[in-house]
Amino acid sequence: MTDLLLKNVRPLGGAAVDVLVQDGRISQLGANQQAPAGVAQEDGQGALLLPGLVEGHTHLDKTTWGDAWYVNNVGSALTDRIDNERQWRAKTGHDARTHAKALALAFLKEGATCIRTHVDVDTDAGLKHLEGVNAVRDELADRMRIQTVAFPQSGLLKRSGTAELLDQALASGADVLGGLDPSAIDRDPARSLDVLFDLANKHSKPVDIHLHEPGDLGAFSMDLILDRTEALGMQGKVTISHAFCLGALETPRLNGLLERLAHLRVGILTTAPASRPVPSVRACRDAGVTIFSGNDGVRDTWTPYGDPDLLMRARLVGLRNDFRRDSELAWALACVTGAAAKACGFTDYGLHVGARADLVLVDASCVAEAVAQHRPKTLVVAAGRVVARNGAAV
Amino acid sequence: MTDLLLKNVRPLGGAAVDVLVQDGRISQLGANQQAPAGVAQEDGQGALLLPGLVEGHTHLDKTTWGDAWYVNNVGSALTDRIDNERQWRAKTGHDARTHAKALALAFLKEGATCIRTHVDVDTDAGLKHLEGVNAVRDELADRMRIQTVAFPQSGLLKRSGTAELLDQALASGADVLGGLDPSAIDRDPARSLDVLFDLANKHSKPVDIHLHEPGDLGAFSMDLILDRTEALGMQGKVTISHAFCLGALETPRLNGLLERLAHLRVGILTTAPASRPVPSVRACRDAGVTIFSGNDGVRDTWTPYGDPDLLMRARLVGLRNDFRRDSELAWALACVTGAAAKACGFTDYGLHVGARADLVLVDASCVAEAVAQHRPKTLVVAAGRVVARNGAAV
Ligand SMILES: [Zn+2]
Ligand SMILES: [Zn+2]
Repeated sequence: MTDLLLKNVRPLGGAAVDVLVQDGRISQLGANQQAPAGVAQEDGQGALLLPGLVEGHTHLDKTTWGDAWYVNNVGSALTDRIDNERQWRAKTGHDARTHAKALALAFLKEGATCIRTHVDVDTDAGLKHLEGVNAVRDELADRMRIQTVAFPQSGLLKRSGTAELLDQALASGADVLGGLDPSAIDRDPARSLDVLFDLANKHSKPVDIHLHEPGDLGAFSMDLILDRTEALGMQGKVTISHAFCLGALETPRLNGLLERLAHLRVGILTTAPASRPVPSVRACRDAGVTIFSGNDGVRDTWTPYGDPDLLMRARLVGLRNDFRRDSELAWALACVTGAAAKACGFTDYGLHVGARADLVLVDASCVAEAVAQHRPKTLVVAAGRVVARNGAAV
Repeated sequence: MTDLLLKNVRPLGGAAVDVLVQDGRISQLGANQQAPAGVAQEDGQGALLLPGLVEGHTHLDKTTWGDAWYVNNVGSALTDRIDNERQWRAKTGHDARTHAKALALAFLKEGATCIRTHVDVDTDAGLKHLEGVNAVRDELADRMRIQTVAFPQSGLLKRSGTAELLDQALASGADVLGGLDPSAIDRDPARSLDVLFDLANKHSKPVDIHLHEPGDLGAFSMDLILDRTEALGMQGKVTISHAFCLGALETPRLNGLLERLAHLRVGILTTAPASRPVPSVRACRDAGVTIFSGNDGVRDTWTPYGDPDLLMRARLVGLRNDFRRDSELAWALACVTGAAAKACGFTDYGLHVGARADLVLVDASCVAEAVAQHRPKTLVVAAGRVVARNGAAV
């Protein structure tokens, strides 16, 4: 089931090759490959070959995917949305596991084979949502890689007992420790980050912090994060999600932060929202900072938007950054492929011999077309298994 | 062929009704309609019913739709893009008529039954592109309404002979007179606008001016446009496209302009680009200004983006304006339905008895879902004819 010969496909739009998959990995890649006896064969018909897409930041536990439409009449402050969601969950008994699985499979059908999902941990729900999403992660492990981030959505210091829950979360299988606005939400940034980084250090887990704080406040918090990254030797283990402040600083201050981010190998996640200042993909790349992308919420009480098709997210990255040239659209694709895999630590990733056979065929002439225009996916292969064909799950 | 009984559909998500279409118009709308003898019947299966979608601003003559992918390696200045396109057209002999028709039919398949398209008029090509698109307009007139705008893409004063060409264009069937940045491109705003408005007045045609000029410069040009609108009594006949300046003014200056725009019934077209300041849909609506939307270019030498599915454009309007509530998403839909029809002067438009039977069925529970999520269109009816079913042209 995890051996396959994929004929006549064009990696990233290059010359046509055949891809031989054995034991779920790419074992040969080149012209005129022959299938060993008994190995199934697929005719790619010259389609564009992409590596499996990577969702670098979502919230599987929050989605209403597979459920009736959620009518949104929520206030617009961050705290309105946090409080509304906690109340909605209590009222409806929303089952994170069921919906997380439905959305994970929707992602897979659209070619996403790696997902980093934040999962709420708070003193109302405890570890319930995380246990649900961890179960989905384990259930789908033969097809996709899901990382769970234990995420203090209601604040870390703000509600006492949260740090202890995060400690348990990491002990019981969360892959990453999450954080949230140490200044704006916790209102005690130094102590909030000390508690957070101590926990990560204790469990030797990476950190991924939601930082919505604007302008100079966000830059201040970011420096505090970078101080702790450096002090604890956590280079390459830290992600800052959103980092809106990077979209609204004077150039010298921006350049100083980008240099520090690159030096400490801290990744930046952007959803490339159209309505807020955002980190520039070009500026990050130029400075050597790994910038990548994802949906954030999909169809939840926060947002009616979100799409399991990560090529749509790449398109939004392109639109937000005014990428029009083919070479720029390749950077947008990197945000949901290689750059995301690197930042999240999904290893053995890509279109080379030895990599996991996570493969997506798109009926498009080139990467730029696949990013800028909606084109159908003809085949999705996950760890060597055909999981979707012409848009339908297999 | 233009009589039809459409059973069990929910107008804008309301209670299910039947829609009787006679002679291409809605003749009855309500519960338990009966088909007169010989009239075809369609079962809407409870789908969401929308009016035909309206593309308020595109460039059918520029598109490469239906052709090989155009590899974009163009410079980023406005003049780079204008010059590159003129040269590309001369080199490739791009046939506007063929591609305009291909794209118009792609729009129709996605439920767009009204289109306003700007068409380049310049001293290299003369009226060639316009004649091509006028021919498409006339050829498809039984199914869709296309308005052509004679558009001086290379400037009005800048290349001598352009005003005479626009004069001929209006005399020979262009529906609207276009304009372009009277300060930044023509560099003589008062005279440029005098020439433009004199032509419009001579031919009694509406005006639609591309105004990319930023901030206070754009506001200055806008006031000059409004002065002439007022002086010539052209209330309700003028559109300003893009109007980026409205996204970057101090509040008192912005409010003064919005008040004038509302008073003179000047419409504002926004594509809601993610990478530039834009007019706020909420602010325009609050001030009584008609704001509507469209793609601008689709897959041309300017942009690799653009989508004939106008619900995607509504989604981009929603994302740019941070619309999350269901009530706000209805405003985004209005930008590609009623507000666009009103601004462009497409009459007899909507879901009422007597309106043209331009009808779109979407497999969605409500308007908000159809805007925020990609949902399939099950049926498109144009002037009473079924033109597409489940995404395929009929
Ligand atoms: Zn998030
Ligand atoms: Zn335009």
